[in-house]
Amino acid sequence: MNNTIYVYNKPLAEAKRLWHQALSEQKFFDRHQDETVRVDDCLGRITAEPVFAAISSPSYNAAAMDGIAVHFEDLASASEAAPVRLKSDRFRPVNTGNALPEDFNAVVMIEDVHRVSENEVELTIPATPWQHVRTIGEDIVTTELILPEGHRIRPIDQGAMLATGITEIKVKQPPKAVVIPTGSELVQPGTAAQPGQIIEFNSRILTGYLREWGAVTGRAAPVLDDQEMLKAAILSATRENDIVILNAGASAGTKDFTALTLSTLGKIVVHGVAIKPGKPVILAIVGNTPVIGLPGYPVSAILTMRLFVREMIAEFLGLDIPTDPIIPATMSRPLHSSMGVDEFIRVTLGNVGGTLMATPSGKGAGAVMSLVRADGILTIPVGSEGVGAGEKVEIELIRPKTEVDSTLVFIGSHDNILDLIANQLHRRQPIIRISSAHVGSMGGIMAIRRGEAHIAGSHLLDEETGEYNVSFIKRFLKGTPLQLINLCYRQQGLIVKKGNPKRIRSFSDIAHKGLTFINRQGGAGTRLLTDKILKEATIAPTDIRGYDHEEYTHMSVAAAVAAGSVDTGMGILAAAKALNLDFIPIAEERYDLIIPKQFTEDKKVRAVLDLMESSDEFHRQILALGGYDLRDCGKLMYEQ
Amino acid sequence: MNNTIYVYNKPLAEAKRLWHQALSEQKFFDRHQDETVRVDDCLGRITAEPVFAAISSPSYNAAAMDGIAVHFEDLASASEAAPVRLKSDRFRPVNTGNALPEDFNAVVMIEDVHRVSENEVELTIPATPWQHVRTIGEDIVTTELILPEGHRIRPIDQGAMLATGITEIKVKQPPKAVVIPTGSELVQPGTAAQPGQIIEFNSRILTGYLREWGAVTGRAAPVLDDQEMLKAAILSATRENDIVILNAGASAGTKDFTALTLSTLGKIVVHGVAIKPGKPVILAIVGNTPVIGLPGYPVSAILTMRLFVREMIAEFLGLDIPTDPIIPATMSRPLHSSMGVDEFIRVTLGNVGGTLMATPSGKGAGAVMSLVRADGILTIPVGSEGVGAGEKVEIELIRPKTEVDSTLVFIGSHDNILDLIANQLHRRQPIIRISSAHVGSMGGIMAIRRGEAHIAGSHLLDEETGEYNVSFIKRFLKGTPLQLINLCYRQQGLIVKKGNPKRIRSFSDIAHKGLTFINRQGGAGTRLLTDKILKEATIAPTDIRGYDHEEYTHMSVAAAVAAGSVDTGMGILAAAKALNLDFIPIAEERYDLIIPKQFTEDKKVRAVLDLMESSDEFHRQILALGGYDLRDCGKLMYEQ
Repeated sequence: MNNTIYVYNKPLAEAKRLWHQALSEQKFFDRHQDETVRVDDCLGRITAEPVFAAISSPSYNAAAMDGIAVHFEDLASASEAAPVRLKSDRFRPVNTGNALPEDFNAVVMIEDVHRVSENEVELTIPATPWQHVRTIGEDIVTTELILPEGHRIRPIDQGAMLATGITEIKVKQPPKAVVIPTGSELVQPGTAAQPGQIIEFNSRILTGYLREWGAVTGRAAPVLDDQEMLKAAILSATRENDIVILNAGASAGTKDFTALTLSTLGKIVVHGVAIKPGKPVILAIVGNTPVIGLPGYPVSAILTMRLFVREMIAEFLGLDIPTDPIIPATMSRPLHSSMGVDEFIRVTLGNVGGTLMATPSGKGAGAVMSLVRADGILTIPVGSEGVGAGEKVEIELIRPKTEVDSTLVFIGSHDNILDLIANQLHRRQPIIRISSAHVGSMGGIMAIRRGEAHIAGSHLLDEETGEYNVSFIKRFLKGTPLQLINLCYRQQGLIVKKGNPKRIRSFSDIAHKGLTFINRQGGAGTRLLTDKILKEATIAPTDIRGYDHEEYTHMSVAAAVAAGSVDTGMGILAAAKALNLDFIPIAEERYDLIIPKQFTEDKKVRAVLDLMESSDEFHRQILALGGYDLRDCGKLMYEQ
Repeated sequence: MNNTIYVYNKPLAEAKRLWHQALSEQKFFDRHQDETVRVDDCLGRITAEPVFAAISSPSYNAAAMDGIAVHFEDLASASEAAPVRLKSDRFRPVNTGNALPEDFNAVVMIEDVHRVSENEVELTIPATPWQHVRTIGEDIVTTELILPEGHRIRPIDQGAMLATGITEIKVKQPPKAVVIPTGSELVQPGTAAQPGQIIEFNSRILTGYLREWGAVTGRAAPVLDDQEMLKAAILSATRENDIVILNAGASAGTKDFTALTLSTLGKIVVHGVAIKPGKPVILAIVGNTPVIGLPGYPVSAILTMRLFVREMIAEFLGLDIPTDPIIPATMSRPLHSSMGVDEFIRVTLGNVGGTLMATPSGKGAGAVMSLVRADGILTIPVGSEGVGAGEKVEIELIRPKTEVDSTLVFIGSHDNILDLIANQLHRRQPIIRISSAHVGSMGGIMAIRRGEAHIAGSHLLDEETGEYNVSFIKRFLKGTPLQLINLCYRQQGLIVKKGNPKRIRSFSDIAHKGLTFINRQGGAGTRLLTDKILKEATIAPTDIRGYDHEEYTHMSVAAAVAAGSVDTGMGILAAAKALNLDFIPIAEERYDLIIPKQFTEDKKVRAVLDLMESSDEFHRQILALGGYDLRDCGKLMYEQ
């Protein structure tokens, strides 16, 4: 076993400084080449030198209105009482854009021209010199600056250049970047990945971002875990590219000899940065080409590349250092910080009653969906003790603010219907998105209490009264005007492998046969239901193997059963059906939406209610999931 | 003469409603086709249906750390005092991402593993079930929603799809749009446009924007002013495209028979909208294809297309209606509104001491540069009486806010050196841009007084003292701490045609020979100088033909002389030289920068001062313009 631990654990700012210094020493930022392109083809390119007007625009005095060209002196005395008549030698019909005929010096617009005969007009208003004339150079005069160097060309810029006689310009060639995936475990998309194999999708994500940032990119063939092959691939890539990205191989695993290889081929500038995710990043120079060794996990790789490569490309092109807007938000739940690192947390954002609430969109460096769902990134700086619930934070926005403002924040119990709602809403009104945090029914109620959600989903059974949700609302949401609206009734039961090989019929079987169970987290309605059933059957939690093994959604429970990691777990029929598992019904339960009255007329909430009340297609889709009854869907169950 | 006046003059909202209704009736928004593309090739495309995970991610239980796989039960009693030793059959070395070997249920990270021998390890910390394991479906479970319908695909979305076994998806085909330029006066870029001819650049701008909004576009060959040719072009275009844009021919000029042609071929929905610019727009349906007749002026055409076509494309693709952010700003100068129209004013923005100041970036529907320079658009709604100086307004941002915040606001006298400063600054620090408004020296002083500019440029001569600027500052900027720093001395004189054909030597010649003059606006230093010279020579303004004909910059004056519109005007040598004109020196004058002390350490202002003080290249470039003396460049002339 290779016990290499990172020698360095540089603070982020120092790592950035060292890297910038190394790149400057290599004259990386002076390396760009210029190329001449037609203005017709230069959209989005970066000017390599300032562009000055070659001709004035307009290049001749032109009529700015449809009407007649006149000599303003002729109309000096014109008035309603004493109209002036002009014979055809003293006026010329002109259309907008026509050159002003020689010696004429003003235009009268057609609405003010009274035709007397074929050859004579009558005018009642005096004219001023050059009125309604676009004089030469009114827009821009020859030799004046149109665009500075280092400017990204927009359609309007193309127009301005063509208007002033420029048809070719010098632009900067973008840096060439290549991504080399490494690792014998990689298989191509479309292959069924066997245990231990990984679908090679990182290089697609990474080249996509590199291209957005302004590089031209290629993907190299994946390199197996073989040092000689890796060496050859790096050397060949550094000869043909301005930037080389290695993906995976940056950590301390036994086959991770990227650092060793880079240190024999060139110079390692930084290995290990005090950030999470992304800690094992390697920043190196081979020949005079920067080589960046990114961690293998997609989220780590993307965030690290964003920190170290985005700025490189911008500076190579002479563009400003790119930044995303920073906006203030309120944290919806506490976050503990990791020791000794700057930590980057992906968050979803939602505007709830005027406050922008930030909620982590998922954790784990491998969680691609956490970035798919993310609206922004929260940095918890090294030395911070974390962030408390309700604390003010600053979020780096990675999605337009308008989209964030149109996000419906759903917090609470998980149900598969939420995916259907999300898709139907987005389809009907594309701006509306749903940010849903699955923290269990109690979590949803507490979020409503803290003003952090538009809607909470809840299925909390009061053992005393046998009623759902109402007693909990009365207790925890006292004084909050709200409506409780039914979404569905659904089947809860034990999810088991196809064919029920362990012949499970009840919780007693689990306890007696010593089978493995997977539980839901505390505060989940399903957890309460499980505990109630255990209590009724007088089974002690300690008799259930895996009682402490918690997951957050029905689908996670089903996935663990499908994988054979556990024998069974409690969940809804829809989750079992989705993964082709069997299901032993235990109870029907009621699932309601809690909606504060301040949001019942909110456009986004209204859209959800409309869907529930009036969309047959939506109802059909729910019933197709299996295990649902919609007899009260949309019905007001309680209000206060 | 064709006296067609627009029959309609629809309010904007009604025009939009009628147009949307006509498009809906034609089922335009239901017309998009889907196509199947590889996920590798789908970046930026729009999903045509929701995308669900085909496999879970991860698809097997995987080590989340480098270390060893263990059975957590084995370590239940492990502690520093009582380490647990595991033989090789009870642990397996694993790297991050490896499949967890069958039957193992936790991972201990390498840092916590003490190697005893080749086949034995010692551990001192208990493990919890599934610790450091990425369980199946941790990120996403089979059948869960990855992307909704109508979503624009980002690199991270591609990764999520590939990770969950999706390699092909259905996306929406973008609408096909074509731009047909019309008008016999059009010539291609690269041709020297003769008076009355217009370089055909609009179609390049328009297709560029259409592409940014999501269409695939083509440019048709320009169509001459011939009704049969126009008919044929429209019919052919409507058969092959989803959207047809005609450029020019929408107004009431004699050759503008677009409306007539469209009414014979199909149905005109709207002709004439109460907006400025853009009033004569035509919205029509031919066959079932929307045909938009845009005004000929580039600014009118772009703004009108933005109002009527951008939303069409978004809705065709099922995207949200695009909007630009709206931000509050303060108007730097009064604006009068036009009667009976919604008016769109292009403005530049600058953050001066925390207030975002908006200044019109130029007027005239033909002024392409007004849009090149613009940061945002101000709408003055119909019925409004205009906007006063200092009034709060809302601006639709068309440039990122970060760029706006990095804009140095220069207001005051015009000098050709400003172009050099703009380019040098942008080149050294790409984020810094200059917004410069040429309102004359007095205008600059008043802008400083109102807190609207970072720097004012001024060359006001006090006839009494013979000194520049100081007495004016003492009078108008009393109590404002500021520095007065010299930029240059420059030659002012009479700009005349090459070879001085009218043999002008002085203002007396202009008066006596009855030559035509072009003046600068009131408040310009050059105007004061002109008036002082006339007074000394006892020449009455009324004796100067064209004394009331005013321009705002040296270059505009030079351009008028170059065009032969006037015989001469006062200006600086650099302007004459730029246009290859001759120059009769009249006086050397001092040109200073007025900088309030609150801005002398501002990063942007500092960059200008650094340039003046220390850049030899910059000084060389100034001297190459001609007529400048830099003996005091950067010197503090006065402070208070």
